[in-house]
Amino acid sequence: MTHPKASPSANAFSADVLVVGAGPAGLFQVFELGLLGLSSLVVDALPQAGGQLKALYPDKPIYDVPALRHCTGQELVDRLLDQIQPFETQWALGRKVQGFSEWIAGSEPGLQVVLDDGQSHRVRALVIAAGVGAFVHRQIDCADLAPARGRSVLSLYALEAASLQGRKVVVAGSGDEAVACALRAQSLGAATVHLLHRRDDLDTSDASASQTLKQAGVSRLTGQITQAKLGADSSLQSLCIARAGHAELWQGADVLIECLGLVPQLGPLAEWGLAMHKKQIEVATDTFSTSLPGVYAIGDMAHYAGKRKLLVSAFHEATLAAYAVAERLNGGPVPFEYTTASARLQARLGVITS
Amino acid sequence: MTHPKASPSANAFSADVLVVGAGPAGLFQVFELGLLGLSSLVVDALPQAGGQLKALYPDKPIYDVPALRHCTGQELVDRLLDQIQPFETQWALGRKVQGFSEWIAGSEPGLQVVLDDGQSHRVRALVIAAGVGAFVHRQIDCADLAPARGRSVLSLYALEAASLQGRKVVVAGSGDEAVACALRAQSLGAATVHLLHRRDDLDTSDASASQTLKQAGVSRLTGQITQAKLGADSSLQSLCIARAGHAELWQGADVLIECLGLVPQLGPLAEWGLAMHKKQIEVATDTFSTSLPGVYAIGDMAHYAGKRKLLVSAFHEATLAAYAVAERLNGGPVPFEYTTASARLQARLGVITS
Repeated sequence: MTHPKASPSANAFSADVLVVGAGPAGLFQVFELGLLGLSSLVVDALPQAGGQLKALYPDKPIYDVPALRHCTGQELVDRLLDQIQPFETQWALGRKVQGFSEWIAGSEPGLQVVLDDGQSHRVRALVIAAGVGAFVHRQIDCADLAPARGRSVLSLYALEAASLQGRKVVVAGSGDEAVACALRAQSLGAATVHLLHRRDDLDTSDASASQTLKQAGVSRLTGQITQAKLGADSSLQSLCIARAGHAELWQGADVLIECLGLVPQLGPLAEWGLAMHKKQIEVATDTFSTSLPGVYAIGDMAHYAGKRKLLVSAFHEATLAAYAVAERLNGGPVPFEYTTASARLQARLGVITS
Repeated sequence: MTHPKASPSANAFSADVLVVGAGPAGLFQVFELGLLGLSSLVVDALPQAGGQLKALYPDKPIYDVPALRHCTGQELVDRLLDQIQPFETQWALGRKVQGFSEWIAGSEPGLQVVLDDGQSHRVRALVIAAGVGAFVHRQIDCADLAPARGRSVLSLYALEAASLQGRKVVVAGSGDEAVACALRAQSLGAATVHLLHRRDDLDTSDASASQTLKQAGVSRLTGQITQAKLGADSSLQSLCIARAGHAELWQGADVLIECLGLVPQLGPLAEWGLAMHKKQIEVATDTFSTSLPGVYAIGDMAHYAGKRKLLVSAFHEATLAAYAVAERLNGGPVPFEYTTASARLQARLGVITS
């Protein structure tokens, strides 16, 4: 033969399985895959693991995780992260999956997955555990701002990297994050800081937030951005603010920071051609496979008859999906063993030496 | 109308739901039913809650309960019992369900369940969470012993209630329980105690067990019971023991205690007419309903495509079964709420006052 068949080595793969979503479903997916000897690469739009639990209710109590009478969202995330410690896991946080293609090389099927940073990863299967979608920062609905985004219109996460020294900063938002952001901007040496919110009152957990802002020299504005003026280089110059019962106000601003909370977006997933049920992905209840080969879905984004969006169901789904992935990659049944008794599983968990 | 329609009052029911099995699946079933405002009566053949976890491996480690990196069987049972504390639960331990019939009174459908103590209970639904079956004590296969069972042939659980003072006691078994039983019989004032086991070696976790038995004055016999002589009142008189390489031996004995471990039996369940898959009950994956109306099955005894006998799946099954039971009893959808946010659920859990 003049064209030898390409035979990918094990390290042609970034990981065995790419898990979309670092929420509780995705984290337990990593655990169940690890038990079966499969490695994971976890992608999440948020800059940290934990998904909704971490982003939306880290301090709220949860009472219905089996054998945990009470825990907070943060504690549950910490416990799940602790549980996957034995397994080598790769992370691509603050990233979204753009798309993937089937990758055929030699006899080993695989998927080529492209992230929004342009990086591509070869994996052997894909599990979507994306909850209600990728959490992205809510943006102000004003078309004038579009050319300045990423330059002088920033999200909270870009705050520390931005140079605010001597700049006129407007922080949009009324919650704890917005208050903290305004105070931080002040401490980073901004010339002026205005906190802009739509209603008169702040929506903070700290009753003394108004007082703290005043003492720190942060000004307050009530209203809503309707227009913006940009310079020739698309940098922000000023914002037009509509105010109830007052004339509109043009406020000079070099930097606008949007602290308006997170909003889930289905994103590129919607374009993949997966069979859907409204905004959820149709799956089989024995394998949690989707309509695309090698692609599985679990957790709040998966749909089947009787589906309830509960943690306890996501954990079950992750478990059966892990077996289905392992059987697909193995080309047949894999041993069914208990962690209580199996030396193989205990070696993978690092509790006995193999 | 001359015959007013019977209208059962709420307290005509022993509980809303009878749960068969006090293992982890049954305990979490009680929790999920409780969250939905439904009370449980739990029946188990063993004298304590915990099922296999408690009976077979209380000290063994478990690594695959979500968010619990490591726990023992005993610890998991304790945690599940703690979690159902908020709910008033009735228990019928050391009991088996014999059968049930549909009970029609007024407009409220129900089931009339009969236990092996002859007690009957009216409930509105039945969830079978019976694992691999009812755990019963393994018995010596010798027909001569049958008339003496319960009198002078006893199970380990009857030890403390038996009068052993001055009696000739034979303990059959080779494990930790058998050794502990022989030592206890000695300390309860038995005239003689023989420990009878089939192979030369004991099967104990304590390497010094032989020495301990010797010091306590317990004799050892190796062999197997083939015949027995009973008195006119069916009380045990002597046992014929076949011994490898030796002549058979007639050993005088007033009391025989069987410590041969537990063995699961499907029991009367097999006769109920449930659609079965081998020794498992066929269920639907959206409701965990069986082929009989008002009867549900979860955990290791339930079967559906893809079923894995894992704790994580039992917890999911208990959750969907609870919703299905609640919807059946409600005659339509019940509110879907999160413990994190719902005042109704938090009041049921006792974490806020209603």
